[in-house]
Amino acid sequence: MRFLIDCELQYEVVAETTLILNVEAQRDDRQRIIRESLALPLGITSEAHVVPETGNRYRRMVLPIGTHNIVYSAEVETDPSIADVVDVPAVPVAKLPFEVLPHLYPSRYCPSDRLGRFAWRQFGNIASGHEKVEAICNWIHENVDYISGSSDGSTSAHDTFTFRAGVCRDFAHLGITFARALGIPARFVSAYALDLFPQDFHAVFEAYLGGRWYLFDATRLCSMDRITKIAVGRDAADSAFVTYFGQLTGPPKTITVRQSDAGAATDWTVDAVSLSR
Amino acid sequence: MRFLIDCELQYEVVAETTLILNVEAQRDDRQRIIRESLALPLGITSEAHVVPETGNRYRRMVLPIGTHNIVYSAEVETDPSIADVVDVPAVPVAKLPFEVLPHLYPSRYCPSDRLGRFAWRQFGNIASGHEKVEAICNWIHENVDYISGSSDGSTSAHDTFTFRAGVCRDFAHLGITFARALGIPARFVSAYALDLFPQDFHAVFEAYLGGRWYLFDATRLCSMDRITKIAVGRDAADSAFVTYFGQLTGPPKTITVRQSDAGAATDWTVDAVSLSR
Amino acid sequence: MRFLIDCELQYEVVAETTLILNVEAQRDDRQRIIRESLALPLGITSEAHVVPETGNRYRRMVLPIGTHNIVYSAEVETDPSIADVVDVPAVPVAKLPFEVLPHLYPSRYCPSDRLGRFAWRQFGNIASGHEKVEAICNWIHENVDYISGSSDGSTSAHDTFTFRAGVCRDFAHLGITFARALGIPARFVSAYALDLFPQDFHAVFEAYLGGRWYLFDATRLCSMDRITKIAVGRDAADSAFVTYFGQLTGPPKTITVRQSDAGAATDWTVDAVSLSR
Amino acid sequence: MRFLIDCELQYEVVAETTLILNVEAQRDDRQRIIRESLALPLGITSEAHVVPETGNRYRRMVLPIGTHNIVYSAEVETDPSIADVVDVPAVPVAKLPFEVLPHLYPSRYCPSDRLGRFAWRQFGNIASGHEKVEAICNWIHENVDYISGSSDGSTSAHDTFTFRAGVCRDFAHLGITFARALGIPARFVSAYALDLFPQDFHAVFEAYLGGRWYLFDATRLCSMDRITKIAVGRDAADSAFVTYFGQLTGPPKTITVRQSDAGAATDWTVDAVSLSR
Repeated sequence: MRFLIDCELQYEVVAETTLILNVEAQRDDRQRIIRESLALPLGITSEAHVVPETGNRYRRMVLPIGTHNIVYSAEVETDPSIADVVDVPAVPVAKLPFEVLPHLYPSRYCPSDRLGRFAWRQFGNIASGHEKVEAICNWIHENVDYISGSSDGSTSAHDTFTFRAGVCRDFAHLGITFARALGIPARFVSAYALDLFPQDFHAVFEAYLGGRWYLFDATRLCSMDRITKIAVGRDAADSAFVTYFGQLTGPPKTITVRQSDAGAATDWTVDAVSLSR
Repeated sequence: MRFLIDCELQYEVVAETTLILNVEAQRDDRQRIIRESLALPLGITSEAHVVPETGNRYRRMVLPIGTHNIVYSAEVETDPSIADVVDVPAVPVAKLPFEVLPHLYPSRYCPSDRLGRFAWRQFGNIASGHEKVEAICNWIHENVDYISGSSDGSTSAHDTFTFRAGVCRDFAHLGITFARALGIPARFVSAYALDLFPQDFHAVFEAYLGGRWYLFDATRLCSMDRITKIAVGRDAADSAFVTYFGQLTGPPKTITVRQSDAGAATDWTVDAVSLSR
Repeated sequence: MRFLIDCELQYEVVAETTLILNVEAQRDDRQRIIRESLALPLGITSEAHVVPETGNRYRRMVLPIGTHNIVYSAEVETDPSIADVVDVPAVPVAKLPFEVLPHLYPSRYCPSDRLGRFAWRQFGNIASGHEKVEAICNWIHENVDYISGSSDGSTSAHDTFTFRAGVCRDFAHLGITFARALGIPARFVSAYALDLFPQDFHAVFEAYLGGRWYLFDATRLCSMDRITKIAVGRDAADSAFVTYFGQLTGPPKTITVRQSDAGAATDWTVDAVSLSR
Repeated sequence: MRFLIDCELQYEVVAETTLILNVEAQRDDRQRIIRESLALPLGITSEAHVVPETGNRYRRMVLPIGTHNIVYSAEVETDPSIADVVDVPAVPVAKLPFEVLPHLYPSRYCPSDRLGRFAWRQFGNIASGHEKVEAICNWIHENVDYISGSSDGSTSAHDTFTFRAGVCRDFAHLGITFARALGIPARFVSAYALDLFPQDFHAVFEAYLGGRWYLFDATRLCSMDRITKIAVGRDAADSAFVTYFGQLTGPPKTITVRQSDAGAATDWTVDAVSLSR
């Protein structure tokens, strides 16, 4: 599918601030950037960095005191790898690529060491692989309420498990946590999503299954073939769309994602969807 | 300095277990392996992996039910970079290498987002750089008791800050947490240490200062020029000397580290010590 | 039923210690003490206190350095109030006695403010009263593993809910927490229990229903008509069988509870059982 | 001193709600109610309850859907017991009245079991009694920032100790926690306070010293002889000015406290002040 993405951010900088921006779509065989532009505040230069292992694209800049607008626009075509869910098994730890192993370990927002007993009891008997992670997503969808403002930057999956409410980022963290506790590598994905309501950045997660990273969304707010990936990481600490050091407020942000090819509206996919290499 | 390292581990495997071993010393210009051997249980083969970015050396093997011994021996010569502490300033976030940035983010055991107010109040005014991280180590040494058995695998720096007791791993986690909260990248280091009593694996940490990773040990159990690095990572979740998936007990372990060159005993170093490239 | 209770405690006092003992059975119309004796260490005097509102019996003494034995023996006859569970409704908050209200509030080990969303979702639709608290007990029994040594003195119901393992005290705390979250007053009960295996002190809880405090045991280790109450409180902090200020180790303890009347073995009761006035 | 107190609360009730109000000043030899009135919404009756052990005054009412105003006005004369701080020693646990003992135990917001090591290290050597609790208050004042909105209803003293920010309720919880950890009974006090800015309900705490409950305020927002006590309890869970079961929003509240006798403005007291019997 082809997407037109517009992302406009506005920051009120109170003291000189170093900003690390991570809103540019990943560039990859399965996610081609047809065209894109990044408009920075007048007179601001930025330093770009692409992480070789992940494709995450960072942009670092120093913002002086004042009001600043940043506008990112892109047209992106994705070509997901689609598989029947029954053909996507879990990979035994003994066979996982070494590069993938760190995604089995607990991280700040995904303390998988603390929810293992529950995860095994609840999901341990489910046939291995994509079905198992789907069962995780179903459980989260049924047991956690999506409530805007119910969590904040210190909320971990442990908190969400107890409190039973959160937003997309919390749903992703909880899914990652359960997957890791079950020996399935999982990572956080920040994304643009078509048909998201209200429009905003989205957070989903990927689990490493059958030799690839497959996309999952426990919020069920978006079909997995309508995702454009921005960044992957261990959790939101690793993959924030913006990280700053200094003092600012904001952003009021406007995100819009539209479909730009002629594709008719389709049903949500029931297949396994991957945008990884 | 030159060190003779012997590390003997014994595991009682109760159900087939995939073991990821991380006890081999890093190999680097500043840490040369003169000779080494790894004796695995009879009939067990292992798969080796060196992480390009860090030099961490992993060894994966599948162990059947039974009792298994693993013996690692090495002679290692280290050639640390030594600097006067006043010549080792902090690096502004705007100048940090992009690769280093993830070590500013909170991790499972180092929730730097939660201890920021204290860190700034306590250490914010200290002249930037090596002195600041030394002040962190001094504070930890004065305010946290080293008590064997006072923590476990779920203990974070947040817990240690409150409980005021821990072991080397907890001291390192708390140091990392404060450093990150202050905008100084920091990472966990598992190590062999000369003169450690009782002898065991050791955990220290590195802070990124003046363009290098410098070693710090809030426990003051070892002079920083007597360290042989095994692995670095975001925290202990990333750098465990062994991670396993299966069921085992152990290890009874015997670690010995001896000096093998003719160097006379020297005082503990007061300089900034780095073993990074 | 009539019970013969023997409780023998041994303490190794390392520095002079003030001990507050709470092992004597409550004395009440429904729980008659037929005979009892408390043997303190030679030369030790104690000060007794009965809390008027609860009937809890405390004994305070100062123990010098040394090894001390305390032996409590009693024969107790209980005459529980038995009701059909369908006749035991919840009491609206507007009708609760004021004295009972504090048992709706969160306490150290029962943070009912944090598990409310789950409690309402899981138990909110169950017909009010005894059935609701039974549903809580059933859920705990099915979802939490009884594992000796899996918790400690800092474990709250919040931890148990996440970790899904605990001992009798944790099961009681979780039951109390859910009940309070649902607007049902609940309190901790330390007890002697017939047929408990292995024999030890037991912890159950009471919920205020239909104008009385009814007994519940989410561990299902004991039929509720085989309980002799020692103390009630907001949680274990309030109702410890011993609290001390000083330094001691122990106790090795031997608790035995035998039936002393001719009653044949009966099935576990399915009725609502109360030992409250 | 003599105080004119006005307290006006407004609630928007969304579904029928049982409200338990606790805004009436305690009545006691040391705190005489000269006159008072409580205006409830038209047609609403209330049930009053005074807790014999504490003097807390509760008022229970059922509010239908709609907007409701509650107005409490009182003139109160307090006659505090004043002592020189050096004459107010701690009471050994062996000599404490049994009724006071529960105030040594951890409670929901005051987990004194978790901060003991810090408390002993920081305050253990301070001459016992009033000076020790003053040292606690000084430490809190110096190390915790008073920031409106920095905490919420789930914030415990453990959180405040780590986060180093809070409001009056958090300051009181932390003071109570440290005192209990040191073997000094302590309890929460909700109060009206003269000269508080901005005007609101206030929260302070009492420690049991020299045979009485003495008032302390780690916020230093009010001199201890300008306090009118509303309620005491183990922590804020026990002593909320309003607890409700149902659904409401609010209150917008207006609290004013004025001095009504001719007393000239005096310096803040440096003496030990008690309003307990």
